Amino acid sequence: MPENTVTNADQSRNIHIDADALLRDLADTSKYGGTLKGGICRLALTEPDKQVRDWLSTEGQKLLCTITIDSMGNQFLRYPGTDESLPPLVMGSHLDTQPTGGKYDGIYGVLAGLSVIRAVNTAGYKPRHPIELVNWTNEEGARFSPAMISSGVFSGVFTEENAHSIRDRNNISMKDALKEIDYLGAEPCGRHPVRAYFELHIEQGPVLEDEKKTIGVVTGVQGMRRFTISINGQSAHAGTTPMSLRHDAMLAAAHLTILATNIAKKYGEDAKATVGEITALPGSSNVVCGDVTMTLDLRHPNDKIVSHMEKEFYEQSSSVCAMTKTKMNIERTWNSPSVQFDKECVSLVRTCAEDLKLAHQDIISGAGHDAAYLARICPTAMIFIPCRDGLSHNEAEHAEPKDIVAGANLLLEAILKADTCFDLD
Amino acid sequence: MPENTVTNADQSRNIHIDADALLRDLADTSKYGGTLKGGICRLALTEPDKQVRDWLSTEGQKLLCTITIDSMGNQFLRYPGTDESLPPLVMGSHLDTQPTGGKYDGIYGVLAGLSVIRAVNTAGYKPRHPIELVNWTNEEGARFSPAMISSGVFSGVFTEENAHSIRDRNNISMKDALKEIDYLGAEPCGRHPVRAYFELHIEQGPVLEDEKKTIGVVTGVQGMRRFTISINGQSAHAGTTPMSLRHDAMLAAAHLTILATNIAKKYGEDAKATVGEITALPGSSNVVCGDVTMTLDLRHPNDKIVSHMEKEFYEQSSSVCAMTKTKMNIERTWNSPSVQFDKECVSLVRTCAEDLKLAHQDIISGAGHDAAYLARICPTAMIFIPCRDGLSHNEAEHAEPKDIVAGANLLLEAILKADTCFDLD
Repeated sequence: MPENTVTNADQSRNIHIDADALLRDLADTSKYGGTLKGGICRLALTEPDKQVRDWLSTEGQKLLCTITIDSMGNQFLRYPGTDESLPPLVMGSHLDTQPTGGKYDGIYGVLAGLSVIRAVNTAGYKPRHPIELVNWTNEEGARFSPAMISSGVFSGVFTEENAHSIRDRNNISMKDALKEIDYLGAEPCGRHPVRAYFELHIEQGPVLEDEKKTIGVVTGVQGMRRFTISINGQSAHAGTTPMSLRHDAMLAAAHLTILATNIAKKYGEDAKATVGEITALPGSSNVVCGDVTMTLDLRHPNDKIVSHMEKEFYEQSSSVCAMTKTKMNIERTWNSPSVQFDKECVSLVRTCAEDLKLAHQDIISGAGHDAAYLARICPTAMIFIPCRDGLSHNEAEHAEPKDIVAGANLLLEAILKADTCFDLD
Repeated sequence: MPENTVTNADQSRNIHIDADALLRDLADTSKYGGTLKGGICRLALTEPDKQVRDWLSTEGQKLLCTITIDSMGNQFLRYPGTDESLPPLVMGSHLDTQPTGGKYDGIYGVLAGLSVIRAVNTAGYKPRHPIELVNWTNEEGARFSPAMISSGVFSGVFTEENAHSIRDRNNISMKDALKEIDYLGAEPCGRHPVRAYFELHIEQGPVLEDEKKTIGVVTGVQGMRRFTISINGQSAHAGTTPMSLRHDAMLAAAHLTILATNIAKKYGEDAKATVGEITALPGSSNVVCGDVTMTLDLRHPNDKIVSHMEKEFYEQSSSVCAMTKTKMNIERTWNSPSVQFDKECVSLVRTCAEDLKLAHQDIISGAGHDAAYLARICPTAMIFIPCRDGLSHNEAEHAEPKDIVAGANLLLEAILKADTCFDLD
């Protein structure tokens, strides 16, 4: 090789994200569904969603991308590779939000992906693999339930037929909503090859901020199970019923809440137990509570441990029943198994973070993401950056510009390294 | 004294309640405001209340009673004594009910009092003291708040002026409501001498039933304090927020509920602590709870112990705050000091229960009663009989006929003994 030949690997060291452009895109697109409190209300397949989608396609075309829309409205921007026979390296997330959502959840991953393509394009870098960016439809599930429906169809978790027939609160089907904004694409959802999938996202939790880390190298998504617990005691006069004769459903609920917490603590930092909802009846200050309905949410990256937590809760709840003279019914309403991301892709992200000298740590995603479904069909990894106070699904959601830019540069580095290392002869 | 002279004391041994008449009165008057579910809805000073009051006056007149209505609508039936200079021995309770009240709460005490007068009258017994029966207005406080307003005015706790100006939900003043049913009496409330006051009532708790006793000799009314507790944590994603970083208001509420229970248990069977109401926000199964509002009700017959319970709760709640990383505000919203009934009257009731060979035990009233106010101005005692499952303020409220009759006979015996023993030269 002659001395003055510049290799892809050499050149890639000089490619950087245009920080101003990325931050400007984040600010500019927040007008599509922007709220008075500085957040975004951009439910899937509404007019603001169409506007931001159209904007994304236009920006992609400026960067020489071809645009494909599939039958679930998933929107692909494809930057060509020098070897178009190779499957694309795909980045992505979602542009829809919760009704009182923030400016970063999902949006950051898509716009950072766009900034990666912009960087590649600006530098005149010729990737071997095509590089794609995808905006998944209705990740939030705020308009059409369940969440992540379109990456789910893409990954074979749901059928397109079922997904199309899901209706929103106004009885509009997802298929009609896709047609309405002209995003019912011709390409059958799932017929799109993916070499590897990288999703950049705000953490939506406080760990990275607390640990003063810029980057979370996401190794997987934890297993999650949700329960509805009904406690049946006996309502009685608070002034006349001795403690020893009570059947106090509120007291039982208190013991169960602490039991769940103690079980989670026993299984270490990765275990989580949450009682987030409670209804106590008859709900009068001078009446011993007769009936409680409460929720329980158990999570751990290891499904076996989630099972153990569930089993222990069942077992020990019976002594709470005996102690409080109440009856209990525990119904499991949701079960989402854990996901382990691809070792090679995760390792690649970790190496890139080290190369870029970014303070990082491995982390497990506590929330679901499109990447959790993608992991079923292709090598997948995720990158987290911190968000203020761990706050998300909230108009006050905030990420620091330096972290936003660092995360995007890491995504760029990961794509470039994957392009360099993957699919060599 | 000649051998064939029958003394009052001798004669009184042959006086008994007419059980059939008492049970018939309970059944008959339940039509005034009777509900489909077998309870009574007879809010104070409504048409059904007027009907039952008119019925009571008519029955009293049949038994040779004179009727007096005072300025709070309190209704007195006076059976004459042989020495009209003596102050009357007074029995009483109330004929108003909760919106979905039962057939015994209050009503039993009034109709049993009527049965005592009937027994005296039927036997031709000539009491030394006048014997009176009083029906207190608006004991329940369900229409005009607070409860026991009219016995409160009678006892100098409230002024008549203030009581008259209390308005119901339809903005009708108590004075206007009294006029409306023609029960705004001429006698100034409180100008009525009372030698002693005896109130017979269902227990409204499960103790007597549980202990298989027919009679509770009520020694007093416990002290009661009520609190509103606001817990401020931080709502956070249940999937992404490690247990160690949470500020979980629900967990704090659980610890406080158990703390209150443990404090009550520490102070023995007479101590009671109840968390009856809870509101947890934002109230989502996958969100760590940020804010809780809950009530706490503390009771004990000894006010000093209630103070100790309150103090311990304050002190130990701070460690709950520290442990759960939450802030707490505890506001005392109600404070009702304990009442000790008159030793002589209580002892008289106990002796009579023994004389009648009724299974009995001393008991503290957990609920408020008109007697609690009367105790401020005259020697007072109460008698309880069991009610099924301790259930009260409920259309399913039930007392057994044998207990109903036994309680009335005990009230009769107590009045006769008081008449015999009190105010001798």
